[in-house]
Amino acid sequence: MQIVVFIGPAGSGKTTLTKEFGSWLNKNEFKVKYINLDPGAEEVPYECHFDIREIFTTREIMRKYSLGPNGALIKSADLMLEKKSAIVSRMREVSVDCDFMLIDTPGQMELFVFRESGPKLLEELESIGHPITVLVLDPILASSPESFVSMQLLSIVAQLRLGVESVVVFNKSDAYGEVDLQEIKRRLMFGKGVISEMALSFSKLVEEYSGPSRILSISAKDKSGFNELMDVLNEIHCSCGDLT
Amino acid sequence: MQIVVFIGPAGSGKTTLTKEFGSWLNKNEFKVKYINLDPGAEEVPYECHFDIREIFTTREIMRKYSLGPNGALIKSADLMLEKKSAIVSRMREVSVDCDFMLIDTPGQMELFVFRESGPKLLEELESIGHPITVLVLDPILASSPESFVSMQLLSIVAQLRLGVESVVVFNKSDAYGEVDLQEIKRRLMFGKGVISEMALSFSKLVEEYSGPSRILSISAKDKSGFNELMDVLNEIHCSCGDLT
Repeated sequence: MQIVVFIGPAGSGKTTLTKEFGSWLNKNEFKVKYINLDPGAEEVPYECHFDIREIFTTREIMRKYSLGPNGALIKSADLMLEKKSAIVSRMREVSVDCDFMLIDTPGQMELFVFRESGPKLLEELESIGHPITVLVLDPILASSPESFVSMQLLSIVAQLRLGVESVVVFNKSDAYGEVDLQEIKRRLMFGKGVISEMALSFSKLVEEYSGPSRILSISAKDKSGFNELMDVLNEIHCSCGDLT
Repeated sequence: MQIVVFIGPAGSGKTTLTKEFGSWLNKNEFKVKYINLDPGAEEVPYECHFDIREIFTTREIMRKYSLGPNGALIKSADLMLEKKSAIVSRMREVSVDCDFMLIDTPGQMELFVFRESGPKLLEELESIGHPITVLVLDPILASSPESFVSMQLLSIVAQLRLGVESVVVFNKSDAYGEVDLQEIKRRLMFGKGVISEMALSFSKLVEEYSGPSRILSISAKDKSGFNELMDVLNEIHCSCGDLT
């Protein structure tokens, strides 16, 4: 069984991708289970096999603890850590008779990656299977070469924090077209100033570790790029343990 | 005049640091103005000279657009972009007769750094002065060497996205003690496996650019480390333009 964890900044389209990639896998005869770990989600467009909102929702937290949206989101992340064993135990039940477990994470990426809940949950998940993260990004974040490199680095940040491999997908290629890696590289080479120079150096180092930081253009809407995503996931899954 | 922008993940203590660093500057005879750019803030403990909540609040957005906390935070960031000119024009008024303009940003760092509002606002701010960002972090993020390196990289991510220099401060040293950089370096050198090796390589590259990525331990609560922070800000301020 493969465990695929969709992470990414707010608004990048994690939830839609979880749904569409799942139904594509389904059509390809794979058994898929869906997990929602975003207690702040209002609507979830796929049928959840486990939903953190069974335990609590961010709206409830706002009311119960008289917190604003910021405070309630932090409290939610910390509650997730507190309830970690119960959550993973439910995921273990769900994992039976399943080829792919797709996990949707909190809207705000930093709640999962920069607090303790995400790393600790993934650590405990290792008892069920080896998770791979898919970092879902908006193509607007590749609009300048410096910003593109910052996103390559964000993938490294996620790998270092979560201790698992990460694939980068630029979503919404239906609206923005595919990210042109050659053009970005060309512009990087000809950039001027310290910021550009820094971007180029880091980009080169990221490429040395390019195994775990592959970059794909996909569209959850058009279901394009899903074959490629599947290939990368399989490749990483087969080389499991290489990074540990 | 210096413009200091406090960024950082949710719960790192940006708001408290804005308040305490401001009052420390005040006691040292500097004229300080405070700006709150977090529309999701419930209470702001300093006297704001401009508060984004004069224009809108995240709670209002939740009600007005029938959005959940996630959606409302994204909508808030995008509204900030829409109202950018009005916001910067108010900041220009505030900037008169002032030595330090301290800017507090949205609770969730990614709303400011990974959406368009932050980079575009800082770009427009250049007409008033050259901003420097202070990346405020919880020391728990330095508890493993890999996580520490991921935070060094997060500072690079912020610099590449925002196009301005960044100082890293580990806050809450009153509770956690100072971050021991030598010990982290030692553990990095002796780490095993690809993740550790990757962390070491990136850490070395960050150090090559260490000018703009200095790391300090401070405590907003005890007001410790403020002298050092001030020195670093002055140093960057004096070398302004080097990074552009």
